[in-house]
Amino acid sequence: RDTPLHRPLYMKNTNVRVSLPAVCFVWQIAMIVLFGVFIRYNPESDAHWVEHMRTENISSDIENDFYYRYPSFQDVHVMIFVGFGFLMTFLKRYSFGGVGFNFLIASFGLQWALLMQGWFHFLDHSTGKIYIGVENLINADFCCAGSLIAYGALLGKVSPVQLMVVTLFGVTLFAVEEYIILHLLHCRDAGGSMVIHAFGGYYGLAISWVLYRPNLHLSKRLNGSVYHSDVFAMIGTLFLWMFWPSFNSAITDHGDGQHRAAINTYLALASTVLTTVAISSMSQKKGKLDMVHIQNATLAGGVAMGTAAEFMISPYGSLIVGFCTGIISTFGYLFVTPFLENKLKLQDTCGVHNLHAVPGMLGGFIGAIVAAAASEEVYSREGLIDVFDFEGKHANRTVGTQGGYQAAGTCVAIAFGLVGGAIVGFILKFPIWGDPADDNCYDDEVYWEVPEDEETIPPVLEYNNHMIHKHQDM
Amino acid sequence: RDTPLHRPLYMKNTNVRVSLPAVCFVWQIAMIVLFGVFIRYNPESDAHWVEHMRTENISSDIENDFYYRYPSFQDVHVMIFVGFGFLMTFLKRYSFGGVGFNFLIASFGLQWALLMQGWFHFLDHSTGKIYIGVENLINADFCCAGSLIAYGALLGKVSPVQLMVVTLFGVTLFAVEEYIILHLLHCRDAGGSMVIHAFGGYYGLAISWVLYRPNLHLSKRLNGSVYHSDVFAMIGTLFLWMFWPSFNSAITDHGDGQHRAAINTYLALASTVLTTVAISSMSQKKGKLDMVHIQNATLAGGVAMGTAAEFMISPYGSLIVGFCTGIISTFGYLFVTPFLENKLKLQDTCGVHNLHAVPGMLGGFIGAIVAAAASEEVYSREGLIDVFDFEGKHANRTVGTQGGYQAAGTCVAIAFGLVGGAIVGFILKFPIWGDPADDNCYDDEVYWEVPEDEETIPPVLEYNNHMIHKHQDM
Amino acid sequence: RDTPLHRPLYMKNTNVRVSLPAVCFVWQIAMIVLFGVFIRYNPESDAHWVEHMRTENISSDIENDFYYRYPSFQDVHVMIFVGFGFLMTFLKRYSFGGVGFNFLIASFGLQWALLMQGWFHFLDHSTGKIYIGVENLINADFCCAGSLIAYGALLGKVSPVQLMVVTLFGVTLFAVEEYIILHLLHCRDAGGSMVIHAFGGYYGLAISWVLYRPNLHLSKRLNGSVYHSDVFAMIGTLFLWMFWPSFNSAITDHGDGQHRAAINTYLALASTVLTTVAISSMSQKKGKLDMVHIQNATLAGGVAMGTAAEFMISPYGSLIVGFCTGIISTFGYLFVTPFLENKLKLQDTCGVHNLHAVPGMLGGFIGAIVAAAASEEVYSREGLIDVFDFEGKHANRTVGTQGGYQAAGTCVAIAFGLVGGAIVGFILKFPIWGDPADDNCYDDEVYWEVPEDEETIPPVLEYNNHMIHKHQDM
Repeated sequence: RDTPLHRPLYMKNTNVRVSLPAVCFVWQIAMIVLFGVFIRYNPESDAHWVEHMRTENISSDIENDFYYRYPSFQDVHVMIFVGFGFLMTFLKRYSFGGVGFNFLIASFGLQWALLMQGWFHFLDHSTGKIYIGVENLINADFCCAGSLIAYGALLGKVSPVQLMVVTLFGVTLFAVEEYIILHLLHCRDAGGSMVIHAFGGYYGLAISWVLYRPNLHLSKRLNGSVYHSDVFAMIGTLFLWMFWPSFNSAITDHGDGQHRAAINTYLALASTVLTTVAISSMSQKKGKLDMVHIQNATLAGGVAMGTAAEFMISPYGSLIVGFCTGIISTFGYLFVTPFLENKLKLQDTCGVHNLHAVPGMLGGFIGAIVAAAASEEVYSREGLIDVFDFEGKHANRTVGTQGGYQAAGTCVAIAFGLVGGAIVGFILKFPIWGDPADDNCYDDEVYWEVPEDEETIPPVLEYNNHMIHKHQDM
Repeated sequence: RDTPLHRPLYMKNTNVRVSLPAVCFVWQIAMIVLFGVFIRYNPESDAHWVEHMRTENISSDIENDFYYRYPSFQDVHVMIFVGFGFLMTFLKRYSFGGVGFNFLIASFGLQWALLMQGWFHFLDHSTGKIYIGVENLINADFCCAGSLIAYGALLGKVSPVQLMVVTLFGVTLFAVEEYIILHLLHCRDAGGSMVIHAFGGYYGLAISWVLYRPNLHLSKRLNGSVYHSDVFAMIGTLFLWMFWPSFNSAITDHGDGQHRAAINTYLALASTVLTTVAISSMSQKKGKLDMVHIQNATLAGGVAMGTAAEFMISPYGSLIVGFCTGIISTFGYLFVTPFLENKLKLQDTCGVHNLHAVPGMLGGFIGAIVAAAASEEVYSREGLIDVFDFEGKHANRTVGTQGGYQAAGTCVAIAFGLVGGAIVGFILKFPIWGDPADDNCYDDEVYWEVPEDEETIPPVLEYNNHMIHKHQDM
Repeated sequence: RDTPLHRPLYMKNTNVRVSLPAVCFVWQIAMIVLFGVFIRYNPESDAHWVEHMRTENISSDIENDFYYRYPSFQDVHVMIFVGFGFLMTFLKRYSFGGVGFNFLIASFGLQWALLMQGWFHFLDHSTGKIYIGVENLINADFCCAGSLIAYGALLGKVSPVQLMVVTLFGVTLFAVEEYIILHLLHCRDAGGSMVIHAFGGYYGLAISWVLYRPNLHLSKRLNGSVYHSDVFAMIGTLFLWMFWPSFNSAITDHGDGQHRAAINTYLALASTVLTTVAISSMSQKKGKLDMVHIQNATLAGGVAMGTAAEFMISPYGSLIVGFCTGIISTFGYLFVTPFLENKLKLQDTCGVHNLHAVPGMLGGFIGAIVAAAASEEVYSREGLIDVFDFEGKHANRTVGTQGGYQAAGTCVAIAFGLVGGAIVGFILKFPIWGDPADDNCYDDEVYWEVPEDEETIPPVLEYNNHMIHKHQDM
């Protein structure tokens, strides 16, 4: 497919042979240096653990946080690499880029996130070090998710170097907004409706809006799926869907917090599937289902429970959240994405608007409402303090006030996404990043060695004869 | 592929645009209402947990059942959605329906199961509420499995609305037979050889028998795999195979019970693979292996260990069970499925007869034998009481009696499957469900928007020229 | 594709209809007998557990090793069956063989490993029994990995019977070298850089070298990927990559040992991805990435951390290890594999030289250096004893000595691989194993019933007419 016939009309230099290795090497070396200066094991992963157990009066190795959180961490890890990665393989000729660049930027992002989140949340000011354990790994994976969501809006239209830039700034912005929302505003957001999904969604949309491509229709032939690429994408969908209870419960409080967050998310997601199917079927003359909806909108319930999952939203409350977000998300794919593209000049390849931005925003406000409606009767006095962390200088905060702060936090996340995304978008407009031309998008040929097509497997004998003649010629 | 040339010969109305959304919406709303009335968090997932710890003298959060069972739950969850789902992608043009409808009906089924199993097993009669935790989620997933197994027999021949009906009744029947077997007969069946596999298998077979399609050969061109759909199916096979130890141990007793069930299942499955390969190779003139056997019969050992896995069957006993069931299941695919289709008018797409019905039945009887052979010497007095729950009104039951009840339980499961399936089959014969015609089966075109074929990707320049002319015309 | 046109030039008898079933049956029966004689449940999986808890003063079921290790076990299990299996589906027409034979030999290998490792490490000399629990299952999976790595070098060129032989000897050799390295030399090697990767890699290379095929270029048309087979292989890559932290931590010490090993591996792997991408991009004129590198070299950091992961290598040390091995492994794919093939007559299908042999060897030496550099200051006195097991007759060993032994252990592993592999290679040269001819390699047609190609799906009506005529003819 590299014959003159297939040359793009608008030539752009997509050669990343200098820029991509340079970015990878320089940034990775920077990571090593910064890790050397700042990152150390925390008491639970340090060889001094046995001493630590004695001084802290910990009775058993099983009390090491590793055993509370490692299974959830691995589920989250699968969501980041297989979930997001395979969800983005749905395009007929961009599966390598979908899963491969996701792999690259998440691998960079999690290192940078350990540093950024470390500086903001885990820095020991007496030693100047960041002490890490399994909870930090989960948070780093979470932090990457913001940038991977943004990638969903940009899929097929950017170069890997641009994606590295998106991730560098995405992780940085994430750490700042997370600090403001969780520490300054003292919000709760265990599964990240606000800090991950609303932020990541609007971040990606703002970038994509700035990078609007007026002639993108010239790549339309590749902007779609084939049968097997849709099945590959279902791998991503299902691993995201199945492990979302782990995502929303991974860093909640030990005990009932993790337990309840998992149950609520499980229920919301189940409910979402039914309403997604219903709306998808209704939207087509013959009642046929659209794979785009099944692959994406079925996940909206997990996004929308990101804040409220650890609260006492009650099982039927979770079902209601899933019910509504399935409908809203599917409608988004049917009507809002085309509207955004045609009227607002916003090209959103994976529809992150409908899967992350809006459900994330809703999740933030749902969290605010559920927080404001909390009562000692439902939570018990101790439970209320535990769940909302009403301790220290926040000991006297009322649930109503908490609800207000939760709502404010949602707005902060959106603002960071929009403003940060716009700025990053402008940076990405410099003509140095190796992005493809408008008629050359959604094509793995640009950045990957793509194998020949299957049809070209020649029959054995013919080929052998050919080889034999060749040998004789030699 | 929607040209007149491809119109099915026998037209049937497969439009589900009203019925599918109606079923999804109405049933989901019913779930919300019933959850609102009945379902609450149990003490381990409720915010009162800290108080509960104090009153129950629980020393640490790690004693929350979440940490005993959540990793197993997630493995089971993967089996239900990726395992069953991808196992059913093997057909060349029904992969969307295989994985997609599995997703839909499991999402409904688990909600209905929480209610049905709750009413029968977990209802607190003083408050009229069902209190749920992670064990209920596992049980709900288990309960879905029965209906998903039935789907295997019906794959490609029914509409999604019919599948919802299959699941509604399947879960209901499951809850009743489970109540009879586990509570009234006081059987042990941790991995569900009886209540899940024997029931689900015969339930699906009975439905399929009632729905016999005399002209199904007209769809024969699509009743088979292509190369890559077979590889997709191996994803399902492997996740089922790998996580089956978690399936059989997920709800067994804490400690040795879970530990032993996992070991036994692991061994039985390993053994099954070797005998499956042996029989598959022997059955073909040149010793070639058949993917159908590798995808399915390799799992029979897990099914057959569903009851006995938690017993002291001993490691070599597990190997023997796997050895025999691998042989039996592969013979089933070679001889019994064709026999059923040709002589008994029973069309079983995935061969659930060989993978679930017969191994499940065998598993029930193996469990009966192993139970009857139990002794205080092997189990210890306490171990015997723990494993078989010889407490309360069953304190004086002998192992021989227990064996008898186990065998009776197997028969109950089969009876429920056959009778229930026959009734549901007749319900599904009403001409209102939108099922496909005999010459239109195994085809995703009927219920899905299917993308164009890969071959139709036009070359770039040609396409661009075309687009440019189109633009000039506009 | 079985027409005369496609007949291989050099006919070889690839019929395994007798040999494959015979090997499977006889060996499986041998397993049953040996398990009957030797294998029993250990106290944590035996029904006497409650008594054991009392006598050992264990306070809770959660202290059962099952809860410390089962989640890691399942991750390792996924790596063995889905990770290795799907990584080997990358060839365009050998995906069945890649994932299917991997399934077969791992299922046999883990049984044989339980026995072999049991005899060497877990035999209770007073009773003559091997008592197994979850740690044995992990070790058995590890032991299989050695042979699966060897399969990578042989992929597409051997018969399933030969693979069974490779596994039989591979597991045997593994158990012996492991005994020497871990017990006699008292090395630490939690993730098996030495005992698994260096051994397995050189074992496979030596076999492949002995089995050199001078006319393998005649199969060149099938020695490559197609688009979707590369995406399938990414499933394998990602599950290996994600779960490698579990692999390296699965059998390390409870508490900080598992925790630290997971963190170190996670970091090394992230770093490897960036340098792999950098070198891959640099190696091609236009900076395009090669899927072979992304699929394989990204994993080298996990291999190289197999020994040092549980040590206090420090987070930035892990990043450095990943950084270097990503570069080395990608260079291996670019230059060493072609060199080995052309100059050394060593055909290495998957490049196990670059992914396992060299990174494993490096991992062994890295472990030696890190061990030699250990200090009481960093580890604490107790920590040093715990991590390096300086107890009993090794109580007085210095870290310097330990480093020397670690280096010696690496050499033992390589020697066992090379010598053992050469011997096994000669055994496999006997003309009785049913291996394919040089112009018939990398082809599933040889050992599998392969479905017709997708293109041959006939249109509906045409086919139906045909069927109707056929019926009328009958």
